Amino acid sequence: MGDGQRKQVFDAPEYRRRMRRVKQRMYDRGIDILLVTDPANMNYLTGYDGWSFYVHQGVIVVIDREEPLWFGREQDSNGARLTTWLTQENIRPYTDDYVHSPTKHPMEFAADVITEVGVGKRYIGVEMDNCYFTGQALECLREGLPQWKFKDADLLVNWVRVIKSDAELRYMRMAARIVEKTMQAAIDAIAAGVREGDAAADVYHAQISGTADFTGDYSAIAPIMPSGIRTSTAHLTWTDRRYEPGDIVLLELAGCKNRYHAPLARTLVIGSASSALEDTARAVIEGLNTVIDFIEPEITGEEIEEKWREAVAGSAVVKMSRIGYSFGLNYPPDWGEHTISLRPGDKHLLKPGMTLHLMPGIWEKDFGFECSEPIRVTESGCEPLTNFPRKLFIK
Amino acid sequence: MGDGQRKQVFDAPEYRRRMRRVKQRMYDRGIDILLVTDPANMNYLTGYDGWSFYVHQGVIVVIDREEPLWFGREQDSNGARLTTWLTQENIRPYTDDYVHSPTKHPMEFAADVITEVGVGKRYIGVEMDNCYFTGQALECLREGLPQWKFKDADLLVNWVRVIKSDAELRYMRMAARIVEKTMQAAIDAIAAGVREGDAAADVYHAQISGTADFTGDYSAIAPIMPSGIRTSTAHLTWTDRRYEPGDIVLLELAGCKNRYHAPLARTLVIGSASSALEDTARAVIEGLNTVIDFIEPEITGEEIEEKWREAVAGSAVVKMSRIGYSFGLNYPPDWGEHTISLRPGDKHLLKPGMTLHLMPGIWEKDFGFECSEPIRVTESGCEPLTNFPRKLFIK
Repeated sequence: MGDGQRKQVFDAPEYRRRMRRVKQRMYDRGIDILLVTDPANMNYLTGYDGWSFYVHQGVIVVIDREEPLWFGREQDSNGARLTTWLTQENIRPYTDDYVHSPTKHPMEFAADVITEVGVGKRYIGVEMDNCYFTGQALECLREGLPQWKFKDADLLVNWVRVIKSDAELRYMRMAARIVEKTMQAAIDAIAAGVREGDAAADVYHAQISGTADFTGDYSAIAPIMPSGIRTSTAHLTWTDRRYEPGDIVLLELAGCKNRYHAPLARTLVIGSASSALEDTARAVIEGLNTVIDFIEPEITGEEIEEKWREAVAGSAVVKMSRIGYSFGLNYPPDWGEHTISLRPGDKHLLKPGMTLHLMPGIWEKDFGFECSEPIRVTESGCEPLTNFPRKLFIK
Repeated sequence: MGDGQRKQVFDAPEYRRRMRRVKQRMYDRGIDILLVTDPANMNYLTGYDGWSFYVHQGVIVVIDREEPLWFGREQDSNGARLTTWLTQENIRPYTDDYVHSPTKHPMEFAADVITEVGVGKRYIGVEMDNCYFTGQALECLREGLPQWKFKDADLLVNWVRVIKSDAELRYMRMAARIVEKTMQAAIDAIAAGVREGDAAADVYHAQISGTADFTGDYSAIAPIMPSGIRTSTAHLTWTDRRYEPGDIVLLELAGCKNRYHAPLARTLVIGSASSALEDTARAVIEGLNTVIDFIEPEITGEEIEEKWREAVAGSAVVKMSRIGYSFGLNYPPDWGEHTISLRPGDKHLLKPGMTLHLMPGIWEKDFGFECSEPIRVTESGCEPLTNFPRKLFIK
């Protein structure tokens, strides 16, 4: 058996372009070596794709080395060979006695690799607030690299990821086709008397079986689909309960292709909507439409939020949390990129090729409403990635 | 609408027993306040259940306070009200400007809460190597609590979780029923010409729709189901590829109920097996059966691994990584508990009520084989939680 199944999600020039952009940022910030522990950033620079992020692993970018290095658990190293563009010498596996051990830590191994490739260098950047880069990882690395100066390189790669290439957008459009089918599957499945879990099963089936042309991947957030009083809060999933007449159901779902997402939220009510829900739906959808018309390059995140606030000013809707964020390539626990947030204070200018999830979710004391849109910033405005009616669904 | 959907996964006495055990360990280690950031540990002590772990959140256990405190994002605080046994005053939401912000960090908020409830106290325990407790979280907390002494309390709660109550085992048995159905669905779906993603869709559907009596929850690890050369490594999922005659397919799946897992691995070959695969399968299954017969209370993790090594000694099978680990309640990215590992050096004594995933996965240069069993340690031996043929499946 050969490498016939070696997966080429992008061609080598795409990865090299990404590396050049990351190195420019390293250079600007005086970083000789960047330790990347965010699984999405690891994938972005190397193609590495495996559910191995429950152990410590990383990608090491050396400013004057063409290829980055991957380090991880030995049993995942064939995965690195099969999914990355790296040559064998840059795949550095550690033995299993480093895993979940009271006496050894994988960052000791990483420090050794960094010492080896970092001769004559001094400044290391680490992703300080990335989940998967633990307090222990930081301390262990500091101990193993006593001569090195540490710099916070959190989000350094994320800020390169924020503008999508045509090749990336191709996968995001595939994800958009998947989420349209998935949302329809959810709406079709939900009815009074049906178990929430059976509707969730149909959602997953649609999300993974995809279309006739391509299947889907697991999304970085599980389907969020609470009903009834549980719609009063974000991030709940489903239960064994059977839907009842009058239930509101939130549906925050995503399609995913090659780790690229298209998230989409809609709300459904079984039977008839209360006037409070109808009023909320009307205001939110009008606000969302206003924002979509407004977005163009060279405006800031806070200007968009301000426009939203003006649009809903005549209604009872008050949203205290951000109304959207940048998204794209990701792994659990989040499809957001943690860069741009549409809220007061966000001074980032939008650029063509950015992708935002416009998500003005409303969670009141006893019910919620969600209607969202994933969009791409174009040269002159913005383009919704999905085509799904923006309305309150009634069944 | 009231709290009719407030979910009672366990009764209050169960949570209070857990709190008492955690407090004894805190007392033994001289910890006044324990900051719990592991989502499974948060759930274990409070019941909190939401996909909100992509932002900083936690549970604060004060040694002389009956109830712990939950802190998290405002939009998740109704979720805390609906899923935990905590009274309102112990649910502490932070505003959205703390989320993914370049200027504010949620651990500043946590430090304020700890200062408030920790008057006269001095020693704080943090889960140093828990993913979700980032390097930045540690530094931020140290800055916000300059008078406090920090202790590493990593796995403190995990070591309480390691022995399961009857109430927990009830959910694990439900998860076992689900994974049996899920494994059968995978075997039924896989055939030459079928897209891997379509088989994965059937796996998810079975995993979530569960049985006639209960539905399932999302598992902490996505279905691991590589085929062909991709079976040479752990932790790969599926692709768009269509299965081909001769393909080996690894199936590492789980059922999940109320966050309690039952993982199970089997291997299938389409057509006929090579003699190398047959030999590996025979040795691994014999080794697994030997270990199941051997396990009883008061033996160590390393003794079990030694028994395994003896059993496979006459074969070509050499396993350099652990052959099993403790599992149970969990969230992504892992269903393992990071406590007991069955490997040389592990001196932990097994006790009745522990649950282990016996998982001697073999990943050779060009193929893999997996056959596993989730078991419970009993008073006199061990009991497999699932009932599924231990063999190489041929289709």
